[in-house]
Amino acid sequence: MSVIYGLDLFGVAVFAVSGALAAGRKRLDLFGVVVLALATALGGGTIRDVILGALPVFWVSDPTYVVLAVVAALATFAAARCCRLPSGILPVADAFGLAIFTVIGARKALDPGLPGAIAVVMGVMTGVVGGMIRDVLTGEIPLILRREIYATASLAGAISLVALARWLPGWPGNSVVAVALVLVIRLAALKWNLALPMFLPRETRDGDAG
Amino acid sequence: MSVIYGLDLFGVAVFAVSGALAAGRKRLDLFGVVVLALATALGGGTIRDVILGALPVFWVSDPTYVVLAVVAALATFAAARCCRLPSGILPVADAFGLAIFTVIGARKALDPGLPGAIAVVMGVMTGVVGGMIRDVLTGEIPLILRREIYATASLAGAISLVALARWLPGWPGNSVVAVALVLVIRLAALKWNLALPMFLPRETRDGDAG
Amino acid sequence: MSVIYGLDLFGVAVFAVSGALAAGRKRLDLFGVVVLALATALGGGTIRDVILGALPVFWVSDPTYVVLAVVAALATFAAARCCRLPSGILPVADAFGLAIFTVIGARKALDPGLPGAIAVVMGVMTGVVGGMIRDVLTGEIPLILRREIYATASLAGAISLVALARWLPGWPGNSVVAVALVLVIRLAALKWNLALPMFLPRETRDGDAG
Repeated sequence: MSVIYGLDLFGVAVFAVSGALAAGRKRLDLFGVVVLALATALGGGTIRDVILGALPVFWVSDPTYVVLAVVAALATFAAARCCRLPSGILPVADAFGLAIFTVIGARKALDPGLPGAIAVVMGVMTGVVGGMIRDVLTGEIPLILRREIYATASLAGAISLVALARWLPGWPGNSVVAVALVLVIRLAALKWNLALPMFLPRETRDGDAG
Repeated sequence: MSVIYGLDLFGVAVFAVSGALAAGRKRLDLFGVVVLALATALGGGTIRDVILGALPVFWVSDPTYVVLAVVAALATFAAARCCRLPSGILPVADAFGLAIFTVIGARKALDPGLPGAIAVVMGVMTGVVGGMIRDVLTGEIPLILRREIYATASLAGAISLVALARWLPGWPGNSVVAVALVLVIRLAALKWNLALPMFLPRETRDGDAG
Repeated sequence: MSVIYGLDLFGVAVFAVSGALAAGRKRLDLFGVVVLALATALGGGTIRDVILGALPVFWVSDPTYVVLAVVAALATFAAARCCRLPSGILPVADAFGLAIFTVIGARKALDPGLPGAIAVVMGVMTGVVGGMIRDVLTGEIPLILRREIYATASLAGAISLVALARWLPGWPGNSVVAVALVLVIRLAALKWNLALPMFLPRETRDGDAG
């Protein structure tokens, strides 16, 4: 429980950083940065809790999440004004958030005994929704829609967690293995530009998407 | 009940196909296609259930919906890679989804005795939200915002269902008539480019929308 | 209670007008205008009620909200076709909606005794989400992301309400002061183009935002 809680807080912090960095690229002001960081950090878990009916959602009953996300956003704001941040930090922070939230989302469905297919969907949804909100609000094409392995990494992690939970129920390493799997796949995809087979319907070749 | 369930599954399948086709036009990879198909197929009903407080939402308690949407997305992916799909298939699939989800959404509010105005809103919302999510995520201007009869078709169907439910309560043809009405209006609008009077506020003529 | 209800209806009406005006700039048809007005007027409060678990949401149990928003949208549509509307009306309507919804959202969290930090988040969220939905659906960059004092005005109002509720519990002027504060800050920012310090991370200077 405590490991999960710590991971959850870490995921909230890195997604808050990624939201604040994305806000910075769009030259938002201070509180716009905070709002975008909150939406990125809390969006996925909020939708997960709403769909499962676990209301009020997690951050209403435990303000630690809100305070942490605000502090992470302000720290990012301050750091970006004083120092030169490494240029590749946004996709890496995003990868950590994706990995952690995928696993926590899947566990939230597995723990009350929901079917494995639902746990996989909840895991991917929790993982990708925060970043989607961030991208839609800043007018970027969502990462998930680019030809990169993104939803795929989350899917692999969610499936592996469901399988491990069936074969090794109660083993505390389950979550760690699944988080690591998402991270390895996503970071490898970023480093070597890996991609899956693309959907290329013939009728779009002549550009009728208009 | 069983006719409604079958219609609902059919609506999920056609919206999943429409989400997968839209994903293909943006050249997503395999699992991006699946995620977009799921969001399109399950988005409208999810928001309907959340607003009505029918939690957890429908697809959490019945994994058939998730499995069906994934299979429809994969089949669309495979078909698009092997064969030349007819070019007008996306708007037609979308019209079927719109018609079915409008009626199912309105019924979900009528059945527990909510007022007719609420049933109309729930019907239109269930019908249009899935396609809106698809369009926003793929960076298209939502269909509903183009100068076509789209929300209007859904509205006509929802109002007709509410009226029929009042005048002919219990008649099993209610839903069929309302589904057919949405379909006819939407397909006629597509075929003959019908449009409603446009909102044309004078102050925008000199382009101050910036 | 009755003052709050009146304010809430007024906020719904002005956000419906702002949604209808935004729809008009995009040349939607009649019912697209109504749908966008409903999404703008009811979006913020819907998300607030969902997150707090106050289901079904407020407008399902009281159809007055839906009817009022539809009437406001139709009146805006008619007015825009017959007369020349003053050009600055959209940001001012938006400022009134922001102020009222911020205060109502924060009160909905304070009344059941939730912590002040949560009340601030719920206030800002209720205030900004309707306008965000409007902007995302019409393909505009959300107001909140522009370099203007927008989220900041909402934040100031929410914090002032939480402070007043602690120091002067039960004083009926609490809400009025907080509404006025948001309005004054937002209208002043509009009039004199006020802005907060901008987030300007160094690494974006060479344009790596892709």
